[in-house]
This record gives sequence, structure tokens and C-alpha cells, in this order.
Amino acid sequence: MASSSSLTLSQALIYRSTTHNASPSSDRILLPAAAISIPTFSGLKSSSSAAPSSIPTRSSRRLNSRCTSTRASAAVETIGKTDTELVDKSVNTIRFLSIDAVEKANSGHPGLPMGCAPMGHILYDEVMRYNPKNPYWFNRDRFVLSAGHGCMLQYALLHLAGYDSVKEEDLKNFRQWGSSTPGHPENFETPGVEVTTGPLGQGIANAVGLAAAEKHLAARFNKPDAEIVDHYTYAILGDGCQMEGISNEACSLAGHWGLGKLIAFYDDNHISIDGDTDIAFTENVDARFQALGWHVIWVKNGNTGYDEIRAAIQEAKAVKDKPTLIKVTTTIGFGSPNKSNSYSVHGSALGAKEVDATRQNLGWPYEPLHVPEDVKSHWSRHTPAGAAIEAEWNAKFSAYEKKYPEEAAELKTIISGELPSGWEKALPTYTTESAADATRNLSQQCLNALVKVIPGFLGGSADLASSNMTLLKTFGDFQKSTPEERNIRFGVREHAMGAICNGIALHTPGFIPYCATFFVFTDYMRAAMRISALAEARVIYVMTHDSIGLGEDGPTHQPIEHLASFRAMPNIFMMRPADGTETAGAYKVAIESRKTPTVLALSRQKLPHLDGTSIEGVEKGGYIISDNSSGKNNPDVILIGTGSELEIAVKAADILRKEGKTVRVVSFVCWELFFAQSDEYKESVLPKAVEAKVSIEAGTTFGWAKIVGSKGKAIGIDSFGASAPAGKIYEEFGITVEAVVTAAKSIS
Amino acid sequence: MASSSSLTLSQALIYRSTTHNASPSSDRILLPAAAISIPTFSGLKSSSSAAPSSIPTRSSRRLNSRCTSTRASAAVETIGKTDTELVDKSVNTIRFLSIDAVEKANSGHPGLPMGCAPMGHILYDEVMRYNPKNPYWFNRDRFVLSAGHGCMLQYALLHLAGYDSVKEEDLKNFRQWGSSTPGHPENFETPGVEVTTGPLGQGIANAVGLAAAEKHLAARFNKPDAEIVDHYTYAILGDGCQMEGISNEACSLAGHWGLGKLIAFYDDNHISIDGDTDIAFTENVDARFQALGWHVIWVKNGNTGYDEIRAAIQEAKAVKDKPTLIKVTTTIGFGSPNKSNSYSVHGSALGAKEVDATRQNLGWPYEPLHVPEDVKSHWSRHTPAGAAIEAEWNAKFSAYEKKYPEEAAELKTIISGELPSGWEKALPTYTTESAADATRNLSQQCLNALVKVIPGFLGGSADLASSNMTLLKTFGDFQKSTPEERNIRFGVREHAMGAICNGIALHTPGFIPYCATFFVFTDYMRAAMRISALAEARVIYVMTHDSIGLGEDGPTHQPIEHLASFRAMPNIFMMRPADGTETAGAYKVAIESRKTPTVLALSRQKLPHLDGTSIEGVEKGGYIISDNSSGKNNPDVILIGTGSELEIAVKAADILRKEGKTVRVVSFVCWELFFAQSDEYKESVLPKAVEAKVSIEAGTTFGWAKIVGSKGKAIGIDSFGASAPAGKIYEEFGITVEAVVTAAKSIS
Repeated sequence: MASSSSLTLSQALIYRSTTHNASPSSDRILLPAAAISIPTFSGLKSSSSAAPSSIPTRSSRRLNSRCTSTRASAAVETIGKTDTELVDKSVNTIRFLSIDAVEKANSGHPGLPMGCAPMGHILYDEVMRYNPKNPYWFNRDRFVLSAGHGCMLQYALLHLAGYDSVKEEDLKNFRQWGSSTPGHPENFETPGVEVTTGPLGQGIANAVGLAAAEKHLAARFNKPDAEIVDHYTYAILGDGCQMEGISNEACSLAGHWGLGKLIAFYDDNHISIDGDTDIAFTENVDARFQALGWHVIWVKNGNTGYDEIRAAIQEAKAVKDKPTLIKVTTTIGFGSPNKSNSYSVHGSALGAKEVDATRQNLGWPYEPLHVPEDVKSHWSRHTPAGAAIEAEWNAKFSAYEKKYPEEAAELKTIISGELPSGWEKALPTYTTESAADATRNLSQQCLNALVKVIPGFLGGSADLASSNMTLLKTFGDFQKSTPEERNIRFGVREHAMGAICNGIALHTPGFIPYCATFFVFTDYMRAAMRISALAEARVIYVMTHDSIGLGEDGPTHQPIEHLASFRAMPNIFMMRPADGTETAGAYKVAIESRKTPTVLALSRQKLPHLDGTSIEGVEKGGYIISDNSSGKNNPDVILIGTGSELEIAVKAADILRKEGKTVRVVSFVCWELFFAQSDEYKESVLPKAVEAKVSIEAGTTFGWAKIVGSKGKAIGIDSFGASAPAGKIYEEFGITVEAVVTAAKSIS
Repeated sequence: MASSSSLTLSQALIYRSTTHNASPSSDRILLPAAAISIPTFSGLKSSSSAAPSSIPTRSSRRLNSRCTSTRASAAVETIGKTDTELVDKSVNTIRFLSIDAVEKANSGHPGLPMGCAPMGHILYDEVMRYNPKNPYWFNRDRFVLSAGHGCMLQYALLHLAGYDSVKEEDLKNFRQWGSSTPGHPENFETPGVEVTTGPLGQGIANAVGLAAAEKHLAARFNKPDAEIVDHYTYAILGDGCQMEGISNEACSLAGHWGLGKLIAFYDDNHISIDGDTDIAFTENVDARFQALGWHVIWVKNGNTGYDEIRAAIQEAKAVKDKPTLIKVTTTIGFGSPNKSNSYSVHGSALGAKEVDATRQNLGWPYEPLHVPEDVKSHWSRHTPAGAAIEAEWNAKFSAYEKKYPEEAAELKTIISGELPSGWEKALPTYTTESAADATRNLSQQCLNALVKVIPGFLGGSADLASSNMTLLKTFGDFQKSTPEERNIRFGVREHAMGAICNGIALHTPGFIPYCATFFVFTDYMRAAMRISALAEARVIYVMTHDSIGLGEDGPTHQPIEHLASFRAMPNIFMMRPADGTETAGAYKVAIESRKTPTVLALSRQKLPHLDGTSIEGVEKGGYIISDNSSGKNNPDVILIGTGSELEIAVKAADILRKEGKTVRVVSFVCWELFFAQSDEYKESVLPKAVEAKVSIEAGTTFGWAKIVGSKGKAIGIDSFGASAPAGKIYEEFGITVEAVVTAAKSIS
């Protein structure tokens, strides 16, 4: 067996964000490329050490999980073989870890963990395949707690299973500053947590993305003699998730795609924050899911019916062409004599008296946060077993690699997230002689170039592929029967699209999903986009029709405040390229920003290729594209534009220069990148001493005062747009060369 | 019959926005109160003139539709009595008006009108009850084109029905600057259009709101001997609307509420922009709607099966306890020999050649935009008939008023939108001695005070009533069997909640709906909120947990960029009150802003009542709450805060003053209102000469540079939040008195 084949490929991939909590005063965004270390594949070779090492939970978290323990994985997956009394005890351990941690924090949600402890136990103790000492092992089963408020369930399970991210100390620090056990599951804080949930419905849509990613990779890489990609995706969602539109969108797609390895548990407890779900939620969920193309199973006793739960999972696994919803009827706050089955147990600590009463009721004599020895001992097998599962897979991969070296190499690239060397050379290049074109079309050239060199590149549009120009010409559609393809058809489901892309991006580091709609419809998917930013999911948002320039469709379709709204959002790059070169530059930044999603605002209308634009400039966010002043950094006036209005700034500069002014034109393609540059650089582009600054952008002027200063002028649109041909609207709203010239003259 | 009873109550309510299109350079928002004329009821008395007057389409549009024509309304509603050949001709008129207008504009969506013309004809010619000369007649049937891109269908129907808002000239100006026929239906441009649609799924959710409003008013005001409120709500939605999550949310509620008078036509044409719906949308829609509690009917031949459509409507009306979905299978672009049943007919003009071919194919010898005389003559009856329907209702109302004067007076108030005189006196008052409280609790005091004096005040939360503090204590729940109540339980469905409130607000001017969730979850409903702003729907968004101050729930729940994102949005007031007085002031502004929605950002944590806050101050958006300088408008430093951070500014001022500084403290509760004030006022609060300005707000600093200037300091949070107790997070993020003091000293 070659030493290069026994892989824990993901071990080199674990960065820690500097954007989260570490220091509130640190830069709000990461630089691309420079600040990010790209792992080299040489670091991925395994050693033969049998002892798994621990994961440093709050520092670099670079894993060294190297083990060749050979305990058979089957032992872990066997269903129904565990002594029921011990299961009861394990389940109650989960319940009391949750109760006690919430009680200590005096804040949190004990109700869900108390009700869902049985399904949680069965999943993590009997069903799921994972390696607690390498939470990033590629072929692990994924678990998503879509009802993220119940996060103590997951922390308790990770703790019992032996994940180093959730030690006893971490349970004691539940919901405290700097802990790895925050108030909702956050993948960037807690290894073992796959995605960031809490905003309801996001998690189940992430799970659809995770399952779609598995199906795609399996179809691309599995061979009749080697199922190298083969894991399940499990999720728990509650009534809240079910009510959210995003879950219906995502589950409709899951049914359409036939994601047979997605198994979702619906915690059917009939209680939400406002009380009994009867007050607002009386639809027939089972029938709805059947209509969406799911297999549906009802577990009537989720509180103690372990065998029912086990049987349901077995049945779900047997249905290979449909995702399965297991409706598990539970009692929220099960075990609490006075608060169970009521909203009062949903989102508050039980209180000392009720904690005591619950201990009495469930016969739990232990101290807070205690794990009984027999339970501890029972769960302890997951450390060697997990190592064995991973080792087994490594051996499998080794054989695969020998037989299918090309596929193995490609899969490795996806698993590691390493970008193929020289990938950026594939980006198209342009000169000022190139034909004028809309940046949405130029974007399509980039997409089609990138997909040829980046194996994990894939994506699609929310039913606007031919308007967003997002079709990959060398690939077919990702569909139920062709999951190996890379054009994803999301339908008119923007919100699920964003969340599914988060799931894909967080499945494996080499995935770079893009998704598209009209820029204004980011309003439909903003919650998912914010999760991309928070969860550090590298999703590329291809947003076309980026201004009044879309014309006749009118104000419902014309973004105004959207550029500002994303510039204000932490850890997301809002890019508005002006031509072909800048579009290529924007993609370069987006690809290299491993922990930061990017929004590309692209034009519907044709734009010329401008003199002076550059990829290097784009990487700095704002840069000089022309200047006819003396070189002393003191032009008479600085004109600043973005996207389609950079051309207007250039034309205005021409006129002003003819009239004898010295004029600098600055492209301000990405504010976040610009403000991350050195003070010296920023001063070199926008010197404080030059107070005559004019900005032009076909969007709100909100925020521009910071750029143009109190003596400068910001030209934009602070009302809604209008339905008319684009040229007419530009004229009527005063987004014109004349307006820029007039403004410039008035202050210089 | 008393002259006071023959009412066209809504006639006094039609204002024209100055924010739309009129002048892009005009102020971006309307002032409340001052800029808005509240109608007096004396203007509502009808004359006895039989001739309806016309509606000025582009000026004030104040209606004078006064008629007592007595033609029986039944004649209009009768189904199936019209000669089929004439119906064919009318249907083809609708098709060709659409084809020709799109062709002339060389832009638009002919496919839907060509397919939906039969159901459109039957609705407007045979089924719906309306008065074309008074589009605002209160008891009209409502129609919503949820698939708004097909707006030429609606414009053609309004034109044929005799609405003065869509004359032949307007059809010729389809999608042109300043026309009343914009690219998507806009209620503020085109009388006869109820709501603004285009962003998919919004319309069907609006329709749920309209139907809920009807059900509520009917339950409150109808008597066994007088059904004074009694209309249907019709909608047409397409595959796109069906895929959007918002429609599932809204339709789940419609089923839960048993909205029997909501009848939605699903244009089942199997084509969306990306092609056949099979590529992304294969769920069983019928079964899903049945699961949502709807009655479902399938019309298999929507292209020519007039009787099928008629029968379906009759059946739908007979089902009184459930909304009905009529799935109408149609051919997109019906009649176009080469483009029908393909995506190419969805969103582009057919082209001259195909227009000719379609004329040939459907046997249409007429010039573009021609309405044949017999069709014109057939439709002409709607003008007298509509007047008769309204007159009949007026007579009914007159009788009602005699018998039930109290109820009639209340209903009149709702219909007119006139605020009861002195309503604002109901707002609670506070002193600095009042107990510290969270603004979410103070908000609840306002809600409960207002509901007692404003008959059209109602609302609720997306399953967070006990956290948002939105329960109306003197009312029960609006439910299927208690629709007269005013607490609406939206479930965890933020997006539908916003859109349903838009429907309620636009149903009748006196409705003032509020809705609530955590501020961060505006991300889920932003598309609906933007429609509130664009469509001038007075919805009050009660958004609590407005900062890191919510504590342990962590960054998924902590708004950062949200204040900025709404400040950047046109025509919406983003208010962040600091204490009880300011909360009351914010509600005063919200109630008086008839054409502008308001977002209230409210704290979870307790705040003291501050010296110097005032309702008058809030109405100006930004104002001085204290200043120990000489009165020459030149303090050493100006501290500016909003909401929960105003207290911090006050405390910092105390310290600085003790150290000898002259300090002004400014509450900046609503930026939009402040910037709408005179330059003189603005200078009096934030003099340019005082460069030492420090702002503090527990949110992004994005946008604050405009306020504090280039020498000032903005204290805020430009990264995501964290999970920990609130006090700890404030400290770690530097949102502290010390930070303000230090910043102030560094620049003054």
C-alpha cells in the first residue's frame, strides 16, 4: 500500500477564522490569497501511528488524526443490538447534559434535546459513520440540526462521541464568550458541526445541499468495484423549520433530485414558541412531503420507541430513489413533570426546582453535567471505531487510486480544496479592442473557463440561466439520473438555492458553488447569503441585472439599495466589475477567498472594455485607472465609479481634461477589499487633501459620503426606479456624463 | 335614503405619491403628517348624478365616481350565458392587445396573457363585481396577478372593462417612461391594480392578506340581515409563484384560516424561463395544496374550455370553508404557431413575423391594439353595471347605517382611513422616573393603547409573540372560527407575514397592520418589506432583539448590517427609539405615515427613560436631547446615539462634562426623517463647524461617515456578533461609555 494513499485528506484544510470573535476590532474581512494558506498535498500523507491525536479546539485546529486501528465499522452501524437499559441511560445522559448546561448558562433551549434525545442517541451511537478524532474525514455521514436552537443536543452527542471540540469544560461554558459551544450550532466554532443553523429552515436546505454534493461526487467518482463516496446526510428539523418557505423549496428540489441518502427527522412535538402549533400550523405535513416526492414514515413514539426509530431508519435506507422524512412524534421537554409539552420548556432554563423535579421523575441521581461511567464506557468505542472506519476508507481509496489514478487525483483535489496550479491562467483576457459586452456575458465566459480547470466548480440559476448567463456549455444538467453533471437547475427558489450552495460549499473544501438570479432578488435569499458570510462558505453569487440599466421591467426588478446592503454585511465581498478584465479579476478574488463568499453585481447592458482596468487593481478593491495630473497625488478632481458607471466617469474625465482639468478616475469595484489595504495605499488612491471627489453609481448614495468626503458629491439614485427603456431611465435619474461634469466643476 | 349613506367611501383616499417617478431628484421619502392630507369624512357624501366621471390617470386621481344607476349586478355575475363566438373574440382581443403592446414596446411577456386570456375574460366579464369608474369602491372583488410579468393581461382587461387608468394611449405606452402601464403591475401607478407584483410569490401572499382582511371585516360588521362586507379575492399564479417558498407559507395559512372566498387560478403551463418545468419542478402541486387544506380543481383545457373554467369557479364558490386552487392547464403563448409552449414566448416580443403568423393562425384581421366594435360594445355594459353594483351596495349600507349606526361609523372609519380625532392621546407617556424597560415592552404598551382607538389596527408575530411582545391583550386570535379578532398568528413564516400585511394594508385605507419577528429575520422577509415601501403600504414592522444586546443566541440572531440596510432602502422609515417616549413617538410617526412603512428596531434589554427625549424630536428624526454649551451652536463635541446606545452617549456626556467639556447629545432615531428636514434645522442639530462628532450604535458603522464627518468617529460593530451574555459582548466589542469618552477626547 503506497504511503500516499492512506488519506485523511481533509486534515490540512482546517483553518481558523480570524473574523470570528477573536478580536472585534480586527479587520472585518479577510484578504483573499495573501491571508490564506493553501494546503499543499504533501502534507496529506498519513503516518502509521495508531494513536489518534487530539484536536486543539481554540487555536489552529490543524488535525493530526492518524490512525490505522482496524475495528470493523459494522459494529457501530448495527441497529438494535444495544441493551435497552443502557440506551435509556445514554438518552437520559443527553437530556441532563442539555438541561444542566442550559441551567448553568441560565439561557438556552432544553425542550428539543429532551424530546429528541432518543433519535440523537440512535443516530450518533448506532447509525452514523464518523471519526470523532477527525471531524473532517471526507466520507463521514453528515448531520445537520436544522432546529439549531436545540444545539445542546448536538453538543451532548459530540461530547459523548469523543469529539475534542466539546469537552466537559465546553459544556460548562455553554453560551459563554469564546466557548466552542455557542447558542446555536456554528461550523466555524465547533468541529463536528457541519453547518451554521439557528435561522429556521436553513439547516434542512443545507442538508439538501450536502446530500446533493454526495450524490454528485458518488456519480462522478464511484466505480462498480469501488464506492469511494458513500455517506448519508441526516437532519433534524422542527415545526418551525417546516413552516418556513425555504424548507418547502429545498425539499421540493430534494424530491425532484431523488436524494435517497437524505434522511430527515421531523421532530413533531406540536409546540412552538407561541404555544400549540394548532394556532398556526394545521396542514398535513406527511401529505405535503409525499407530494414533494419524499418517502414518509411516522414514528408514533419518539420518546421511548427506540425500535420504532431504528426500523424507520432501516426503511429509509432501503428507499434509494427518494429522500425520507421520518416524522417522529415527541414530547417537548420530555421528563419535566410540570413543563413538558408546553412552550415554557422551549427556550428557557427549567429553573432549579423543575430541574430537581425532572431528576426525580427520570430517576437521575447524578450531579450536573455528569456522564455515568457505563455510558461513558459505552460511547468510548467510537474513538477506535471511528479511526477504523476512516482507515478502512483509506485502504479503499488506496486501491481506488491504483486502479483509477486520474479520478483519484481529481477527487483528491476536491477533497483537499487545493486549487490546481495555474488555474487562474484559464481566466479570459480582454483588451480595449475587445467587443463591448454585458458583464453578465463576460461572467459566463469566466464560468465556462473556470469549470474546465476547477474540478469542484458547479452551479446554476434560479430559473434565469438564460438571463443570468450561467450555463456551463461543456456540461449537462445535474438531475436525478445525471447527478454527475454540473449545471444545477434550482427552479424559482432563490432562498433554497443559497442555502443549498452553503451545504455544497461546506461539504468538501474543493467545492466552489455559484448561484444566480437577478440582483434585486437577493432580497429573497438574504438570510442564506448572510449564513454564507457567517459560516465562511465560499459561494459565488452571480447577480445580474444590477441596476436601473435593466430597463422596462421596472422598479420591482431594479436594485437600488442592494449594493449598500451587502457592503454593510460582514465577511462578504460585494464586487461590481466594470468590464471584462474586472469581471475576470472579480472571479479571481472570489475563487481565492476561501472563507468569504462573493456577490458579483453584473450588468444586463453592454459595456466597453476600459483602458486601465486590471486584475491586480480589482484585487485591491479600488484603484486608479487613469490620471493626467503631475504625479504629486493632487489631481483637481477624482471621479469614482463602479460597474456600468465607470464608463460614465471615464467619459466625464475626457471632457474635463479637454477643459484643462487634471482628473483621476478610480474604479471602486469592491469596498471591502479597498478598506483592507494599507493606509498608505488608500491615501495613494484617494488622498485626503483632494476634497473634490465625485462618485457615480446607479444605486443609492447611502455610504458614499465616506468615500467622497463632506465636500464631495455622490451621484446616485435614492428613490425607486421606473419602467422604461434603460437609456431613458439613466437620463431621467441624472446618471449621466453631464451630471458628473457639472458636479466636478462645482467643487473643483 | 339619507344622502350620507350612498357612499363611495374610498373616493377621498386617493393620493398620488411624490416618491414615484415624478422626479428622481425629489426627496426620497415622504414626511409623515405634515405632507399628508388626511381626508375629512364630509367629502364622502355622494351626489345623485347618474353619470360616472372619469379618473384623471396621471394627476391627483381624486375620484368623483358618483352614480346611482340601478342595473342589477346579477346580470354581470351570471356565468355561462354569453355567446361563445363573442367570448372567443373577446379572448382573442385580450391576446392581441397583449401581443401588440409587447411588440410595440419590444419588451415584455406575451406568453402568459395569451394562455390566460380565457380565465381573464371570464373573471372580468362574467364573474367579478367591480365598478370601473371607481376602482376603489370598497366592496369590490379583488384581483391579483401574482405572475406579474403577465401584466398585459391585466391591462387589457382593465382597458376592456372601462377603467380610465388604461386607455388606448396607455396601451401604446406600455413599459414607457411615465405611463400607467409599467412592466409589472404597480398599484401606485394604475388604479384597478390592487397590489404591486412581479417578484414571484408576493402576489398570492398579498391575495391571502386581501382575503383575510375581507373575512375579518365580514365577521366584525356583517349582520344576519346585512352582509355589508362580501367580496371574493381572485388571483392568478404561475409555476414560478408555486416554486417560491413564500407561496407555500401563505397558502398554508390560507388553508389554516379557511379563506373560502379566496380563489386562486394556477396557470399550469409547464414552461418557465429555463424551459420545461420538468427540469426543476416535478412535485405534485394538487396534492400539496390538498395537504395545505385547500380545495383543488383541475381545468384540463384552459385554452378554450370556457365552460370548464366557469364550472370550476361555481364549484369553488360553493366550497365556503376552504380556499380553492383551480389548476388551469394552458398553453403558454397559445395561438403562436411557432413559439407557443416554449420558453421563447415567455419574456420577449414575438417579433413581426410571428405576430403575423399568430394573426393568421387565430384569424385576427385587425390592426395592432384594435378592439373590435362588438367586443367593445359587449364590454361597455360594465360601466353602468359597475355603477349599479356600487349603488346597490350604497343602498345596502344606508340601511345598515340606520340599523347599526355604531358599527357603520366604525366601518366608515376603516373604509376612509380617517384617523379618529385625538387618537394620538392614547399613546402612553413616560417620565425619567418611569421604571426602566425594554423598548419591546414599551412597544407592547403602544400596541395595546392604539388598538383601542384605531379600528383598523391589528397584527401579530411570526411565532414570537411572547418575545416580540406583540399580543393585544383585549383581543383574541384571528382564527378560522374567530376572524373578528385582531391577534394574527402567522407561524414561523416571516416572508408570508410581510406580504400578507401588504395585502391587508392595501385592502382598505383604514387598515394598519403590524407584524413582528427578531430584527435579524427581516432577512427572511426583505422582499415583502421592499414591496411595502414601493407599493406605499403602511405596514409597521415591529422588530425586536435589535442588536448584540440579545446576548446568548449569538451571531445568527444578532443584527449588524440591518439598520444600514433599511436606511439605504427608499421610502421606509427605519426607527430605533431609545426609551418610552421615543417608542411612542415612533408609533406616532408610523401611524401618520400613510404611504410609508416603518421598521421599529426594539431592544430585548431594559433601558432607562432619558431626560430630553420627546415625541416632537422623534418626528424630526434627529434632535438634541441635552447640551451644556453656550447656545452658540458650538459645543466641544457632539455625541450621537440611537436606541439602546443613546444611554451610553448620555453617560459619556456626563463624564466629559464633569471634565469641563461642552457636550451635545443627539438622538438620531430616524435618519430618513432627519434628512427630510430643512438645511437650517439640520445645521442647528449637527453644525458643520463642529467637527468633533462621535456616534455610537451597536451595529455596522456603514453609513455613519455622513453624520460624523471625516474628522469624527463612528463606534460600532463591523463584524458578526458572538454568543455570550449581553453585557460581556458589549464590553468585548467596545460598545461602552469608556470608548465614547476616549473617542471624544481624541478629537475635541
